[in-house]
Amino acid sequence: MIDPTLLRQGNRRALAKAITLVESKLPAHREQAQQLLEQLLPHTGNSIRIGISGIPGVGKSTFIEAFGKHLIGLGKKVAVLAVDPSSPVRGGSILGDKTRMEELSRDPNAYIRPSPSEGALGGVAQKTRETMLLCEAAGFDVILVETVGVGQSEYEVAAMVDFFLVLMIPNAGDELQGIKRGIMELADALVINKADGESINLATRTQQHYQSAFHLIKHGNFWNPKVETCSALHKQSIDKVWDMIAEYHALALEHDAFYSKRARQNAQWMQKLIHQLLEQRLKQNPDVQARMAELQAAVINNTTTPLLAARTIVDLL
Amino acid sequence: MIDPTLLRQGNRRALAKAITLVESKLPAHREQAQQLLEQLLPHTGNSIRIGISGIPGVGKSTFIEAFGKHLIGLGKKVAVLAVDPSSPVRGGSILGDKTRMEELSRDPNAYIRPSPSEGALGGVAQKTRETMLLCEAAGFDVILVETVGVGQSEYEVAAMVDFFLVLMIPNAGDELQGIKRGIMELADALVINKADGESINLATRTQQHYQSAFHLIKHGNFWNPKVETCSALHKQSIDKVWDMIAEYHALALEHDAFYSKRARQNAQWMQKLIHQLLEQRLKQNPDVQARMAELQAAVINNTTTPLLAARTIVDLL
Repeated sequence: MIDPTLLRQGNRRALAKAITLVESKLPAHREQAQQLLEQLLPHTGNSIRIGISGIPGVGKSTFIEAFGKHLIGLGKKVAVLAVDPSSPVRGGSILGDKTRMEELSRDPNAYIRPSPSEGALGGVAQKTRETMLLCEAAGFDVILVETVGVGQSEYEVAAMVDFFLVLMIPNAGDELQGIKRGIMELADALVINKADGESINLATRTQQHYQSAFHLIKHGNFWNPKVETCSALHKQSIDKVWDMIAEYHALALEHDAFYSKRARQNAQWMQKLIHQLLEQRLKQNPDVQARMAELQAAVINNTTTPLLAARTIVDLL
Repeated sequence: MIDPTLLRQGNRRALAKAITLVESKLPAHREQAQQLLEQLLPHTGNSIRIGISGIPGVGKSTFIEAFGKHLIGLGKKVAVLAVDPSSPVRGGSILGDKTRMEELSRDPNAYIRPSPSEGALGGVAQKTRETMLLCEAAGFDVILVETVGVGQSEYEVAAMVDFFLVLMIPNAGDELQGIKRGIMELADALVINKADGESINLATRTQQHYQSAFHLIKHGNFWNPKVETCSALHKQSIDKVWDMIAEYHALALEHDAFYSKRARQNAQWMQKLIHQLLEQRLKQNPDVQARMAELQAAVINNTTTPLLAARTIVDLL
């Protein structure tokens, strides 16, 4: 149904249809999607994948709009995907709202796709990974994967991108209280947005604060996380952010770390899917369904141990 | 071989032999251990289980010694177990060193057991959970489960105890940098140790700092995490720590939260063991062993998708 050649030529209609297939909950569509992806795999991977996180209010949309336009000005094609765990069933979430990035969404070299809804195996992350591959096959050079700074979504996005950027705002005092330490460990860079007007000095102090915080965290052997400031609203220092990512890209390639990171990400994702598939089989197994409640009750009532109950369940498979 | 009646009478030799059985890697011993545990289950659960965490240097041993002696003074029998992920194969880790708690280890109403080594299904946590049950059957009223403040061990301990206490030292400045935010969410209480001599004022300031930090974190509906100070070295305010835990215990019982938390912990542990058992079966399956490397390579080389590879693996089971 979907012509891979058309998609590879960058046909937006073919791309949109392919993404719809990937996002579908119908098993038949999922099969078609996997076949299409296997065909397209040799033509994927030719992009830089950038994760962009930040709590609501940091100006993510404004940043992505300014950043995307800057990249297009450099001759690049930019896809913007979203991973929003709070996305309602039929889309329409804050992250999916194209009106947020009006200029970018009208640009023929940009493609914006709202967050898929939760559902099949692997959840939102699986669909976004597959959509990323489709966009790469369609010739996009830069994939921006946007997420909100809540829950597990940042970990999921960091596990599918080459570079993970966390947007922040200038802030005084105990800044670290607002940010989970885990996120500091995920980030390849922090970008303090809204460094304009009266906030410029505060932004610089915030930058210094995080730079010293990063010194406490061990990182890889060729890249120390950087802290930049910018003003997306006034389109200031957006070029510095891209230059930093380009520098990371060059260094990662030089240190044989770029493709090895992707290989590691794919291998880990495969293991995660194996576990999810096993869980699914377990849930769908009628014998397991029949006995699970009873065994759980026995464990809770202290008439059997968790280990013996678990063994009984697994033996039913 | 092990007489359950002797163990239930508090015979230390029977208890030690039972724990050795639980910690054994031999499948036959594991079977015997499970049978023994099932026999003893009706006699377990009559204790307060307290997790004690803290990075090296906070004075955990000194605290446990002082705290344990205080409890024994109140007529209680105290068992001290350890979960040390860095424990070497044959024990002898820092946490297992009885000489650290010299007085307590000589007391007939105390039982100190070093951390088991990693190994069978469920790891150190599984063995510690089973040892905890054995100690309860042997009549111990308070089980202290000690862990170091690194890695996953805190989560594992928090998931097996009624009350999770984090020991800290007086410290100025950006204290939150040193503590993972996740730990703040696990803790039912922080205890600032070494609140003595010149550090008293600093300890009070640290206490206030964490009290306000806790305000930012949502917790259960009947208990707000408390922050206490004490000096284990000078045996000061150790009674306050126990009074706080006793207050928690009374409130939890009153709100029907005490046994429901244990039930939830057991049910979650059972699910975790199911996953570990499935993983074990997968690893031991000869067909899976034969094809895993090849499929992983295919995923890494982009000739198949992680989902198709995962499905192939699970279909081999």
